[in-house]
Amino acid sequence: MANRETRDRLIRTGFDLFFERGYNATGVSEIVGAVGVPKGSFYSYFASKDALACEVIDGYREQALTHLSQLASAAGSPVAGLRGHIHEMREKIVASNFRGGCLLGNFSAEMADQSDTMRARLSEAFGCWQAAVADLIAQARARGEIASGSDPVELAAILLNSFEGAILRARADRSQTPFDQFDRLFETLLGLEEEHTLGHGS
Amino acid sequence: MANRETRDRLIRTGFDLFFERGYNATGVSEIVGAVGVPKGSFYSYFASKDALACEVIDGYREQALTHLSQLASAAGSPVAGLRGHIHEMREKIVASNFRGGCLLGNFSAEMADQSDTMRARLSEAFGCWQAAVADLIAQARARGEIASGSDPVELAAILLNSFEGAILRARADRSQTPFDQFDRLFETLLGLEEEHTLGHGS
Repeated sequence: MANRETRDRLIRTGFDLFFERGYNATGVSEIVGAVGVPKGSFYSYFASKDALACEVIDGYREQALTHLSQLASAAGSPVAGLRGHIHEMREKIVASNFRGGCLLGNFSAEMADQSDTMRARLSEAFGCWQAAVADLIAQARARGEIASGSDPVELAAILLNSFEGAILRARADRSQTPFDQFDRLFETLLGLEEEHTLGHGS
Repeated sequence: MANRETRDRLIRTGFDLFFERGYNATGVSEIVGAVGVPKGSFYSYFASKDALACEVIDGYREQALTHLSQLASAAGSPVAGLRGHIHEMREKIVASNFRGGCLLGNFSAEMADQSDTMRARLSEAFGCWQAAVADLIAQARARGEIASGSDPVELAAILLNSFEGAILRARADRSQTPFDQFDRLFETLLGLEEEHTLGHGS
């Protein structure tokens, strides 16, 4: 019988296995095996592996948004919240010896061409995340925390996409250098800490 | 019998299928089937699917380096060469309706945790590509083409990694917007076209 708890466990276990091995290397039978339910029952919860992956994407998105808004409230400053959000994602990746990375980035690389349903859900997740970052940038500007006069949505997009690229590279190199470089890009683009900025020296 | 031509065809076909479907979704039997050689003979050319993937990575790296240096020579200016290199990669992705993306980024996302051999080869490929970009940035600065005073290696790393992130996002969104945003980042970081720069307005 379908019940909420089993459904949630399938989503959590799906996330763990997709994150660890990728989409194609993870079978439905491994997911149900790890949860301890018969394979046939999977389809009373989800129409397909794709459908489960979409739920995993939505859950990941909500976690990122909650994390960002909690940090921004706790830090009492939009810029400190953003820095904390990025810093904690980085620390998690470093602590796992550069494994996993970002589920949205991984699924985009592996599945954007294979599943249009997943692609659309990834696009939506990136869009929500970007909107939340843009909102913090706009708040930071309104409070005079940052000097940048660029469009907050464009800045948010560039920061988010560049961070995804930094994660890919950090994983390939097993090195924190791409994250350090991203931090300087962050400070530069928001017009913070002028002495560490990129590109406008001479 | 092992021969050079069959080996090259296995590498080219491996590239096509890995690029189209990803690593795990591509079997050795599909690769040999597409080339038209018996499955057993695969292992007289490559010790494993990983080993073939490493050759594919090396080939992709060489192609990127050749493309970059040819464009830089043809353009007669390091900055024009860099712009052309990025522009042509973008055009290829757009022309394929955002399929494929960058093999190095895709393999990093899918395989960095699964195969240390592939990870090391990806890291090396990114390193070579970054060094070639850094060299052009250093040349551009020596010629007074760019205003940026930042470390060319760091600038090259940030540009390359951010471009990889833009590719991921463009594929998830099936949109050129991430590429347009990347272009403005490129101009900003190199200190070009001041009126379009990001982050330092007010």
